[in-house]
Amino acid sequence: MTSTAVESKVLRTAYQKSVAAYWNNNQQDPVNLRLGEIDGLYHHHYGIGEYDASVLEGPEETRDARIIQEMHRLETAQADVLLDYLGDVQPTDQLLDAGSGRGGTSIMANHRFRCRVDGVTISEYQVGFANEQAVQWGCSDDVQFHFRNMLDTGFDTGSKRGIWTNETTMYVDLFDLYAEFSRLLEYGGRYVCITGCYNDVTGGRSKAVSKIDEHYTCNIHPRSHYFKALTANNLVPINVVDLTAQTIPYWELRAQSSVATGIEEAFLNAYREGSFHYLLIAADRI
Amino acid sequence: MTSTAVESKVLRTAYQKSVAAYWNNNQQDPVNLRLGEIDGLYHHHYGIGEYDASVLEGPEETRDARIIQEMHRLETAQADVLLDYLGDVQPTDQLLDAGSGRGGTSIMANHRFRCRVDGVTISEYQVGFANEQAVQWGCSDDVQFHFRNMLDTGFDTGSKRGIWTNETTMYVDLFDLYAEFSRLLEYGGRYVCITGCYNDVTGGRSKAVSKIDEHYTCNIHPRSHYFKALTANNLVPINVVDLTAQTIPYWELRAQSSVATGIEEAFLNAYREGSFHYLLIAADRI
Amino acid sequence: MTSTAVESKVLRTAYQKSVAAYWNNNQQDPVNLRLGEIDGLYHHHYGIGEYDASVLEGPEETRDARIIQEMHRLETAQADVLLDYLGDVQPTDQLLDAGSGRGGTSIMANHRFRCRVDGVTISEYQVGFANEQAVQWGCSDDVQFHFRNMLDTGFDTGSKRGIWTNETTMYVDLFDLYAEFSRLLEYGGRYVCITGCYNDVTGGRSKAVSKIDEHYTCNIHPRSHYFKALTANNLVPINVVDLTAQTIPYWELRAQSSVATGIEEAFLNAYREGSFHYLLIAADRI
Amino acid sequence: MTSTAVESKVLRTAYQKSVAAYWNNNQQDPVNLRLGEIDGLYHHHYGIGEYDASVLEGPEETRDARIIQEMHRLETAQADVLLDYLGDVQPTDQLLDAGSGRGGTSIMANHRFRCRVDGVTISEYQVGFANEQAVQWGCSDDVQFHFRNMLDTGFDTGSKRGIWTNETTMYVDLFDLYAEFSRLLEYGGRYVCITGCYNDVTGGRSKAVSKIDEHYTCNIHPRSHYFKALTANNLVPINVVDLTAQTIPYWELRAQSSVATGIEEAFLNAYREGSFHYLLIAADRI
Amino acid sequence: MTSTAVESKVLRTAYQKSVAAYWNNNQQDPVNLRLGEIDGLYHHHYGIGEYDASVLEGPEETRDARIIQEMHRLETAQADVLLDYLGDVQPTDQLLDAGSGRGGTSIMANHRFRCRVDGVTISEYQVGFANEQAVQWGCSDDVQFHFRNMLDTGFDTGSKRGIWTNETTMYVDLFDLYAEFSRLLEYGGRYVCITGCYNDVTGGRSKAVSKIDEHYTCNIHPRSHYFKALTANNLVPINVVDLTAQTIPYWELRAQSSVATGIEEAFLNAYREGSFHYLLIAADRI
Amino acid sequence: MTSTAVESKVLRTAYQKSVAAYWNNNQQDPVNLRLGEIDGLYHHHYGIGEYDASVLEGPEETRDARIIQEMHRLETAQADVLLDYLGDVQPTDQLLDAGSGRGGTSIMANHRFRCRVDGVTISEYQVGFANEQAVQWGCSDDVQFHFRNMLDTGFDTGSKRGIWTNETTMYVDLFDLYAEFSRLLEYGGRYVCITGCYNDVTGGRSKAVSKIDEHYTCNIHPRSHYFKALTANNLVPINVVDLTAQTIPYWELRAQSSVATGIEEAFLNAYREGSFHYLLIAADRI
Repeated sequence: MTSTAVESKVLRTAYQKSVAAYWNNNQQDPVNLRLGEIDGLYHHHYGIGEYDASVLEGPEETRDARIIQEMHRLETAQADVLLDYLGDVQPTDQLLDAGSGRGGTSIMANHRFRCRVDGVTISEYQVGFANEQAVQWGCSDDVQFHFRNMLDTGFDTGSKRGIWTNETTMYVDLFDLYAEFSRLLEYGGRYVCITGCYNDVTGGRSKAVSKIDEHYTCNIHPRSHYFKALTANNLVPINVVDLTAQTIPYWELRAQSSVATGIEEAFLNAYREGSFHYLLIAADRI
Repeated sequence: MTSTAVESKVLRTAYQKSVAAYWNNNQQDPVNLRLGEIDGLYHHHYGIGEYDASVLEGPEETRDARIIQEMHRLETAQADVLLDYLGDVQPTDQLLDAGSGRGGTSIMANHRFRCRVDGVTISEYQVGFANEQAVQWGCSDDVQFHFRNMLDTGFDTGSKRGIWTNETTMYVDLFDLYAEFSRLLEYGGRYVCITGCYNDVTGGRSKAVSKIDEHYTCNIHPRSHYFKALTANNLVPINVVDLTAQTIPYWELRAQSSVATGIEEAFLNAYREGSFHYLLIAADRI
Repeated sequence: MTSTAVESKVLRTAYQKSVAAYWNNNQQDPVNLRLGEIDGLYHHHYGIGEYDASVLEGPEETRDARIIQEMHRLETAQADVLLDYLGDVQPTDQLLDAGSGRGGTSIMANHRFRCRVDGVTISEYQVGFANEQAVQWGCSDDVQFHFRNMLDTGFDTGSKRGIWTNETTMYVDLFDLYAEFSRLLEYGGRYVCITGCYNDVTGGRSKAVSKIDEHYTCNIHPRSHYFKALTANNLVPINVVDLTAQTIPYWELRAQSSVATGIEEAFLNAYREGSFHYLLIAADRI
Repeated sequence: MTSTAVESKVLRTAYQKSVAAYWNNNQQDPVNLRLGEIDGLYHHHYGIGEYDASVLEGPEETRDARIIQEMHRLETAQADVLLDYLGDVQPTDQLLDAGSGRGGTSIMANHRFRCRVDGVTISEYQVGFANEQAVQWGCSDDVQFHFRNMLDTGFDTGSKRGIWTNETTMYVDLFDLYAEFSRLLEYGGRYVCITGCYNDVTGGRSKAVSKIDEHYTCNIHPRSHYFKALTANNLVPINVVDLTAQTIPYWELRAQSSVATGIEEAFLNAYREGSFHYLLIAADRI
Repeated sequence: MTSTAVESKVLRTAYQKSVAAYWNNNQQDPVNLRLGEIDGLYHHHYGIGEYDASVLEGPEETRDARIIQEMHRLETAQADVLLDYLGDVQPTDQLLDAGSGRGGTSIMANHRFRCRVDGVTISEYQVGFANEQAVQWGCSDDVQFHFRNMLDTGFDTGSKRGIWTNETTMYVDLFDLYAEFSRLLEYGGRYVCITGCYNDVTGGRSKAVSKIDEHYTCNIHPRSHYFKALTANNLVPINVVDLTAQTIPYWELRAQSSVATGIEEAFLNAYREGSFHYLLIAADRI
Repeated sequence: MTSTAVESKVLRTAYQKSVAAYWNNNQQDPVNLRLGEIDGLYHHHYGIGEYDASVLEGPEETRDARIIQEMHRLETAQADVLLDYLGDVQPTDQLLDAGSGRGGTSIMANHRFRCRVDGVTISEYQVGFANEQAVQWGCSDDVQFHFRNMLDTGFDTGSKRGIWTNETTMYVDLFDLYAEFSRLLEYGGRYVCITGCYNDVTGGRSKAVSKIDEHYTCNIHPRSHYFKALTANNLVPINVVDLTAQTIPYWELRAQSSVATGIEEAFLNAYREGSFHYLLIAADRI
């Protein structure tokens, strides 16, 4: 296929094209780049855990570097928690990173489980960047990134032992997504999701949540949709953890950093008013 | 019940409270007030039809007044079209205006059909304002506004011949709403909806649509949800009209008026890029 | 496959065989043939629009010819309206005429959009007749008719930009049909349906509707089934038009023509008593 | 309520009014009256079992009387089989005859079980006729007929031990009907249905089935709908019996009788070609 | 594939492995072997019909042989009844025995219909045993047994005229099973099931039913699940027969035989208290 | 109502009667009584957390008493964890203990939240015992136990802030249960469940699970059913915790105690082989 043909297959709607364009165009976004430069694990997600308040003190000239390093520690900690819930993964198993960004979590997974990991993303820029990282880390035989839509990955039915989405489900319809994951996972395979979702209990999307949607051109789902879509697709939860309290420190620290983008307040408001959760779900394919 | 008890019954969630607060607090909003002052029909919706371009010309000192008057003509025209689709309504029938705002459409409906009209809104300010208008128009015996939630109106099962929502469905869950409407309508009763909805064909909520959501603290639904929720609740469409092309002139004119609020560009972008429809649906209760 | 094997694949049930036999055997039916002879567009549907009453006057010997010509004008006008709702079709797109009869609408669509059109029908006689017409019109490279069941067309998934059914849905289960259409249409593709459907509001099938069912061995669906089946198959309406008032003149004229078959009164009764609609639905594949 | 108000509550749609009118107006229909006169059990259903061929022979002047008597024996036999499937009914139980016609089966049920039986029908004429029969049989304390819609009977939730429909389900939507029956039956209560249904295996409604629909202004359902509607309403089958072969003799005899109405051939064709079943279903409320 | 790979494909879960192990390991179970030795038809199901009480009398030394012979007559009678409900099967048709055990019913079906029969079972021991029987009976060209999971048989879509399960459905999820059967059957094909199911009317699984579950490591379903799963998979019942009363004699006789396993009392209790049915269902693929 | 009438209303099925009889008749069961006697909190559930191994050592004559005391500490710890997940409960709120046993958890909840607690159970003996405990603890004004079926509690719609089931869901249909809980809970109310459920991933009910079912005449559900039934009833999870590893020590200790009932091995096998989970779910009513 020509590259245009590939592109029109991967990017099916105007919405998907605008999401892809957003991520293709923020190549210099310091909030991802500067943190990744620390140790070569480039993430596209947020962090969890208390931050070390001492980074805010000390010499002004290195203050921002200390903050960046601490933020990176928290986002890597988040990825570690996600991988903890993948269960028992063998070197002969295959994993899928759905919405793989710059590839950090995939490389960590390969390092931990010594197994094949494929990542897919609709940003061609991210595919290139992440594959280059795999080369740098010497794992490019086992870890590969593809310019594919996670709703239609092209991988074989039942080929995956585990799949994760790390803050990427807000770009897609959950029923479509979990139909594809249900197809990809072997019987008994595990899916792990970390996501921001809005709280049905406080009602519709709050102003703060819509602000986040607008900022990232994303479509944050209510908590209830996750369970409806999992249940409809033979994915049955075994763990659900509310990480909200654990992610607030990350945002408080980020608000004080040089890489703040202005969206920090919306996140902090949304989490604190209870209209938004930071949720981890682990579910089994039955 | 005490007024606090009533309030907690009508406003069940934090989200509903914030919506009510928004409408209670924009009492001086000129975009509704100044247009309504022209002839005493106060609307809370947008207009349809071509505007008379000559209003933009002529003496500067009356230019804005001419624009305002033309905008009001367009919003009243929209209400007239909505009422056209209510079908055959008799003086002995009862109608419901669900999300009645300042009451303009209810008063027009009573004028046209000579029947009882009840309006409900979760803004106590609007209830008071609209009931005062009914007194002014001499129809307060037949037209009454209530501080009630349209998801739980308290009216009798099967008591309504017709119900409409004029740009109010983006504040509620459609399945909950149409379950209540299905209960309220008699067999063969008619429901008419005019709404902005986002276009599933272009994909998820575009940036422009999220901006509108944030501006009004509303939750714009995709077009598909309307048909799913109607179908699930024994409401079967008989007319669906895409009013998008007919509402763009209203927004173009409003953008040039003194009452522009800044959200005009988001509407125009969304309509023009095809990510947003202005849709009329008429459906029968079966 | 042998022709018997093909036939048993296309015609799966006794019902389908009886429908095919009906259409194979009414080869000389003047109501379709005489109208088609006028300009070589042979239709198998009814007309819309006011007729020119003057055709009933004037010389007796040409009166019937004038009526036939006027009826043909109305049925061609109906096909033109159907094609109007197909949206933006490019020469590189593909269209499907599901239940293509003698092929008139397919030939009109090719003429208008300059694109490939395939028609399917379970009457082998119609396939032959329609393919011959395509040759006559010089478009047989682009317009082809096939002896296939529209519930199982064999065309590629996602291969069609547009599909229409012009009065053919009463021969099949709508859920099966729209499952197949949903498979065939590309994302964002358009489906247009013109059909007679009975009115849920007046209740079950009236005597007049059952008479039509018996006459054509068809199974007229209630209006509600169309929306349930569309909604269940990712087809979301954008236009619904009640053409009932516009089709009554055609039947009044036909009742006075030489090609009246005796079923005219049942149609007129059903439309006038409100137990039957002539409905157009345009829907998008999402 | 005034009698008009009652009527408009019982007869909700134009369709129901036409059905009621049909049964109100065929007061002199000999096929029901002459058979009932034999022993005072007036039925509105068909018969099962082999007929005694000798009734066709012998003196011409009493031939028709012998046929009528034999037909009545077969229709009473059918009602006896229906009652056999009601299970264990106690004198303290209550039964419902939904679509009770002239009341024959209700009176037989009371005779057998010595319990309360209520019948409902939308024909006021039938209500009057049947109540008079109950007086004649001396069971009017226990057996009462009501002018009510079987979709909305007004009886208490959980009040019925058993319900039957004897050839009456073709006048209503099965989902609505079984929702009402599910409400009326106690946990473990029994529902018995005898009905003509068309055969999904042969495909859509055949010409013969549509002819029956037109004759009785009824809406014969496919076999599959019965099981979908039962399943959706907590009614689980315990017996399903195909009575087709057992009912054909009745129709063959009737075709030779003086009370033949002309519809006999359609029934015989439909049964023999396999497009139509005469089915008994017994199901438990869970 | 290696035999381990085949095994892990056929036996997907720990549960399936334990079921397979159970049947692989009870190779010497006299209740199946001794009965089969009588005439070479080895069954894995129970019997129906009254037993000849005289077998209990007479010489003690042949008493047990007489009982065994009588039990075998009853289990063969059951298989004959099952085959009666398969409908019209031609020599060119194909049948599937889902959960084929030692193959007796398959061999009887081939004898009766002279057509191809495939059997599947997850016990490799049973596959070998049954194929050897087919050789003995001289029908191994037409009757073959396969080590496959009946939830995923690998046979072609629409390839089967008939399928039966003879007391095997309690090992699988019914929705999964009937989805596969619905795929395998041609349009109009027939499925026949004989099974023990628990009675929703008496409530949850009784102690006796759980004892049977534990004994066979099986998962007896409630009666309602059968109809839900059939209905959800385009399988529509035409006959439902409660065989409970007919199977009790078999158990009474077995309890007095030398091959009693100790589970007889649980079956008799369950059947007699009404918490358990022995049910036959025949359904058509539509 | 007479007491028989009450009983037949509360105990609707033979199954429910057998469950009630089981609990009414094990009044002297030491596993509940001896543990409760320690501090007057009588539980009917199992424990969590590591046990103090030192209780197994020391003087033989007090060894069993030490074990009993330790087991009681673990079961009280379990109830404490359950209450932790009830969220923010105010003294003006109302709670429901669904399947309240001897009342221990209800009394603990009242002690913690100072609010009204109602318990329901279908064992009249348990109702009496628990109410007596409430008197002993001096909280009988606020804590009351009722002889009612938890599927039909009779409490007001929306009246409960929180509901819990502590190992009681295996006696009922989950869809029926959560429909009732969804009705009882106010918007935003919390439901907490601790239950044993079998693992869909290992397949059907294992032999060990069926043994537990038989022992308690219960019907253990698969994990997936919980999420299907919650999702279908507007109950959306916020926490899911796998307590399996934490409950194994309790069973190991109990197996060494004087109150072992013989079922300990089945629990330990089931937990260790992974066919059974001890699961906590907290969900919000939306």
